Amino acid sequence: MWADLEPVGRDPRGGYGRFAWTGSDAELRAWFVAEARRRHLDTTQDRAGNLWAWWGDPDAAVAAGTPGVVAGSHLDSVPNGGAFDGPLGVVSAFAAVDLLRERDHAPARPIGVACFADEEGARFGVACAGSRIVTGVLPPDRALALADGDGVSLAEALRRDGIDPAGLGPDPEALARIGTFVELHVEQGRGLVDLGRPVAVGTSIWPHGRWRVTLDGEANHAGTTPLADRVDPMLDLAALVTAARTAAGTHGVLATVGKVEVDPNGVNAIPSQVRAWLDCRGADAAAVDAVLADLAGYAPHRESWTPATVFDAALAARLAALLDDAPLLATGAGHDAGILSAAGVPTAMLFVRNPTGVSHSPAEYAERDDCLAGVDALAAVLAELTR
Amino acid sequence: MWADLEPVGRDPRGGYGRFAWTGSDAELRAWFVAEARRRHLDTTQDRAGNLWAWWGDPDAAVAAGTPGVVAGSHLDSVPNGGAFDGPLGVVSAFAAVDLLRERDHAPARPIGVACFADEEGARFGVACAGSRIVTGVLPPDRALALADGDGVSLAEALRRDGIDPAGLGPDPEALARIGTFVELHVEQGRGLVDLGRPVAVGTSIWPHGRWRVTLDGEANHAGTTPLADRVDPMLDLAALVTAARTAAGTHGVLATVGKVEVDPNGVNAIPSQVRAWLDCRGADAAAVDAVLADLAGYAPHRESWTPATVFDAALAARLAALLDDAPLLATGAGHDAGILSAAGVPTAMLFVRNPTGVSHSPAEYAERDDCLAGVDALAAVLAELTR
Repeated sequence: MWADLEPVGRDPRGGYGRFAWTGSDAELRAWFVAEARRRHLDTTQDRAGNLWAWWGDPDAAVAAGTPGVVAGSHLDSVPNGGAFDGPLGVVSAFAAVDLLRERDHAPARPIGVACFADEEGARFGVACAGSRIVTGVLPPDRALALADGDGVSLAEALRRDGIDPAGLGPDPEALARIGTFVELHVEQGRGLVDLGRPVAVGTSIWPHGRWRVTLDGEANHAGTTPLADRVDPMLDLAALVTAARTAAGTHGVLATVGKVEVDPNGVNAIPSQVRAWLDCRGADAAAVDAVLADLAGYAPHRESWTPATVFDAALAARLAALLDDAPLLATGAGHDAGILSAAGVPTAMLFVRNPTGVSHSPAEYAERDDCLAGVDALAAVLAELTR
Repeated sequence: MWADLEPVGRDPRGGYGRFAWTGSDAELRAWFVAEARRRHLDTTQDRAGNLWAWWGDPDAAVAAGTPGVVAGSHLDSVPNGGAFDGPLGVVSAFAAVDLLRERDHAPARPIGVACFADEEGARFGVACAGSRIVTGVLPPDRALALADGDGVSLAEALRRDGIDPAGLGPDPEALARIGTFVELHVEQGRGLVDLGRPVAVGTSIWPHGRWRVTLDGEANHAGTTPLADRVDPMLDLAALVTAARTAAGTHGVLATVGKVEVDPNGVNAIPSQVRAWLDCRGADAAAVDAVLADLAGYAPHRESWTPATVFDAALAARLAALLDDAPLLATGAGHDAGILSAAGVPTAMLFVRNPTGVSHSPAEYAERDDCLAGVDALAAVLAELTR
């Protein structure tokens, strides 16, 4: 399966650029449908554009009061991203189904494989858009109005992909089919490296948010405007970046300015405006608030906020025990699993060791043996939950 | 003439985006040719893509040892630029020709109107490309290899415009036709506002240069990478911007970071690389060197350097006397006049008062009466030089 995915959506700068509702995304979605068909799984697309492949009849199971168990993740990437963040969870889910069938497992409830749409939010700016829309957290009118860097709205992007935007919205039927959701993901840090273990069970996702800071200046010629007469927002950006890092250190959380836009962005022009995006998260929401309070002078505008997600603690303990006392880890990264958990779906996560600790980069990696250990763990979890 | 130019190349963010060898540039060049034709001036395009409209026979004048007098400027703009920087000089040159003809002036040598190609360098990164190529300062092979932000080379852009790139190069014949060059330009500062005068004569252009600074980092996830483990080039950008401003203040010159590119520029991604461009200039080249020495730790790569240009002092004094003792002003902005002067062409500049002092911005402005005073002055200069 990796060999099929390897050439899709290569970023010319290295790694991958697989953005929602683009040509590479369509290829990845077609790959998902083909893999499902190869396994005689029934594929459906929900009203939010997420794909579901079912082994067994999910609706009969809902009627019987024993909804299915779903594993999966996403296939899209950040710009210049890695190969594992997302695809590892989808590939492992298909591989776990193969393993269970080899072992003649007869599931007592349906098993599903999920592929969530637009998890990274790299194109339209809202992460986990597919799970946010299906759960009703992101209203369809707001979602459809989101625009990419070229001014193309999500509505227009869906239309170009042959999808009627009017159909976009929450899908309680699709949601009701998920008795339990398990997302396997490459670890985005070095917790497992330090512990010397290949697989961990997730406990929680830190509260996290994004803020936009607009720094206004006065456009003028770089060669003729005295320093004292300048209103140069690049200086404000420098101060913001420094202040954000200092505040993060003071309050013990993470803060990052990773995206910047400059107008007009000319070598000999003092900018008229600089826009910067701040990502801030940590174990403690109050500490994140404290960072934002320190930066209040920059009037940050909150674009998104996700409170702390604590996964089903009993489920996590059960899975850890099942997996040879696998370690329990929290993460700072958002996931569709977090959105589903907040929507009341019993949810768990498995993390696979990442020797570099790096993610959202071509350096993101997992050893083959650790990937196989992840598939084994996921198969064990699915077997346990459908016994 | 202003009314014809007003709608061409509007930038959706305000002001103008008229970039070399684009559709808006073609419209502007067609406008120039039409205005020349309306006045029965002979239009030629030199090997560097600059346009020349002649009243009289420039080659006969060269043969007679009395080459012509040329006025003009450029029609392209920076992104989000103003209406006056460039076009005021071209429009005023045509208007001055009209005025001389109304007054039945019979020029003793030909009068030319020039439109230089790609003065701002907004698309291919090299300012005054047209005058640098025609004078041989910018070799054609280096010019043709320049690429715009979409990776389109100048060679390809010329080809798309129906121009054979093989023909690009120095044009000594075109240059020999210029006995004297006079560029009228909107002032890019408030010298004339402070002096209470509408028109000044230029004395010199400060030495100025552009440097590119490449700041490398390690791409990683903003939500999972501890602060201590980060190599975040956005922090280096902040330090560079602050250090450049401090150094400029210390050494009494101007330094500006006006252009920044971030990879991958994602909200939740620590950048793998930030590239920043530094513009630095001042009356004293040694002071510019001192700023760059202060920033040596950032390993700035010089992309261009133009030494100080001192215009023909006797000519400047003669024109100032002619124009009711017009004030003499130096400028920090580069101009085609500076390139021609450095190439040995006797050259002068006239500046027209700018009430905002702002340029390279939609706020760039000149009052109608001051524009008319500029045309009067230019007509007087052309009359004097072709008497």
